[in-house]
Amino acid sequence: MSLLVVGSVAYDTIKTPQGEVVEALGGAAVYFSLAAGLFMPVRLVGVVGDDFRGADLDLLSDRSVDVSGLERVHGGRTFRWTGEYSQDMNSRETLSVELNVFENFKPKVPQAFRNSRFVFLANAPPVTQMSVLDQMDRPDFVMADTMDLWIQTAHKDLLGLLRRIDGLLVNDSEAMLLTERHNVIQAGRAIQDLGPSRVVIKKGEHGAILFDGDHIVPLPAYPIVSVKDPTGAGDSFAGALMGYLACSVGARGGLAVEPRVFKQALGHGAVVASLTCEDFGVRRIAAASKAEVKERFAQYREFLSL
Amino acid sequence: MSLLVVGSVAYDTIKTPQGEVVEALGGAAVYFSLAAGLFMPVRLVGVVGDDFRGADLDLLSDRSVDVSGLERVHGGRTFRWTGEYSQDMNSRETLSVELNVFENFKPKVPQAFRNSRFVFLANAPPVTQMSVLDQMDRPDFVMADTMDLWIQTAHKDLLGLLRRIDGLLVNDSEAMLLTERHNVIQAGRAIQDLGPSRVVIKKGEHGAILFDGDHIVPLPAYPIVSVKDPTGAGDSFAGALMGYLACSVGARGGLAVEPRVFKQALGHGAVVASLTCEDFGVRRIAAASKAEVKERFAQYREFLSL
Repeated sequence: MSLLVVGSVAYDTIKTPQGEVVEALGGAAVYFSLAAGLFMPVRLVGVVGDDFRGADLDLLSDRSVDVSGLERVHGGRTFRWTGEYSQDMNSRETLSVELNVFENFKPKVPQAFRNSRFVFLANAPPVTQMSVLDQMDRPDFVMADTMDLWIQTAHKDLLGLLRRIDGLLVNDSEAMLLTERHNVIQAGRAIQDLGPSRVVIKKGEHGAILFDGDHIVPLPAYPIVSVKDPTGAGDSFAGALMGYLACSVGARGGLAVEPRVFKQALGHGAVVASLTCEDFGVRRIAAASKAEVKERFAQYREFLSL
Repeated sequence: MSLLVVGSVAYDTIKTPQGEVVEALGGAAVYFSLAAGLFMPVRLVGVVGDDFRGADLDLLSDRSVDVSGLERVHGGRTFRWTGEYSQDMNSRETLSVELNVFENFKPKVPQAFRNSRFVFLANAPPVTQMSVLDQMDRPDFVMADTMDLWIQTAHKDLLGLLRRIDGLLVNDSEAMLLTERHNVIQAGRAIQDLGPSRVVIKKGEHGAILFDGDHIVPLPAYPIVSVKDPTGAGDSFAGALMGYLACSVGARGGLAVEPRVFKQALGHGAVVASLTCEDFGVRRIAAASKAEVKERFAQYREFLSL
């Protein structure tokens, strides 16, 4: 199986009650890739400026990420984000955003990537996400993320995207905003009616809820004693989910994703997201081993076994 | 095994976005009893006025609740509470409270109840809760609930109580308030250090986290499509938890509560709490059957099986 992610690559400056980090490698597609790379090779399409550090390219390549689709804009500057988390880390304030080269990101999927069977469209304007699908050669499973900004300002485009994807991954407030429901279960069901047969609603420290056909499966977060930095938890959740999925389906030689496999994929998402939160930026996830993920998943499965 | 609950019996007037109900049977000990009664007989100690309806006494008796410890104050009026829920049902406003006979509640445990092996101290001033323990004949397992008011105004008493109980059941904000932590996992651990070896932190629609010795087990809520009234969900969670526990331990003929049994007890708590929310007041839980609980628990276990 082959897995493609298209999305942001950034330098983040992050402050949390546990410390801070300046211009650290980040961005949705980076967290996704490093998480998915724990399961299988990943193809990355994104854009950076010529300030993008060689060491960061090496880090990605070393972690099974094919960076040949990472466009470098000469004279351009990489996307930058600065944010600060509240004391309980459940909310954050964006202090500054410089979109830079990401502002006019027109993803170009390299010829060699167009046959990817699994595709993840990280948060971007829905028209940008759809432009990726236009370049693909009938992928088997497409999942997308979105955000409140596009729900509010590009609603019609977003509805168009929803009709073209197999899965949507959103957080709870976005799901309720999109569907105008006050109940997350009703919101998930309503999103399924808009197109995607699978919907994953992320709830941060409270876990996630999977809507898979008629099934509704809530899964808790993997509990960690010390959260240092929640940045990228949702994107690494997505990466592990898609990485596990693509590699499991491949291993079984079929394209239909069984409900049980999807549930296990979510469990791996929870586990890898918990790792991400244990250190700043991508530090922890870049240092994680497959064995560590396997062990933590075994614990997760065990404590959910009643 | 024998199970005793001591706590409030009330008439509630409740408004939610789904409707309203006036002077409906409620109170922590009532929800607890009806939930626990789905598993085994329950002994109830509480206080009512002479306005307490015979039909409500009959309802409790019919559901395996021994009401011989329900004190009736002649010339007194039963505790009344009026509240209104927000649109998303995650918060509520108390519109009025008339403590009435509950204000000077001095629980008198009938002689026949003093040998109860499992005891649940529903929310009350910690000194009142301790006065119950003073009347008991060395129970095997005592669990208590508390609230922000006692954490703030009776902190020393509460610390005294914590040293005398085996389990504490609190919601997440109370756990963090009590321990001055911003992280719910750290809060649970810190409460264990104050005495109870088992701590259950309730998170409403997000489920609960069990701290059992060294184990930390997060469990999600059972997902329901339509929440009509969340009143009593936490108390019926506690009732099902303790009812399942007492009846399982009894069936096994031992007093040590295995971690797996405790986890299953929490699962039954989640299931019965979900039933409670499906209708106003005690309607749904009073109408529930053992078979229904069993079936819903089987589904819950199945969707957590990875």
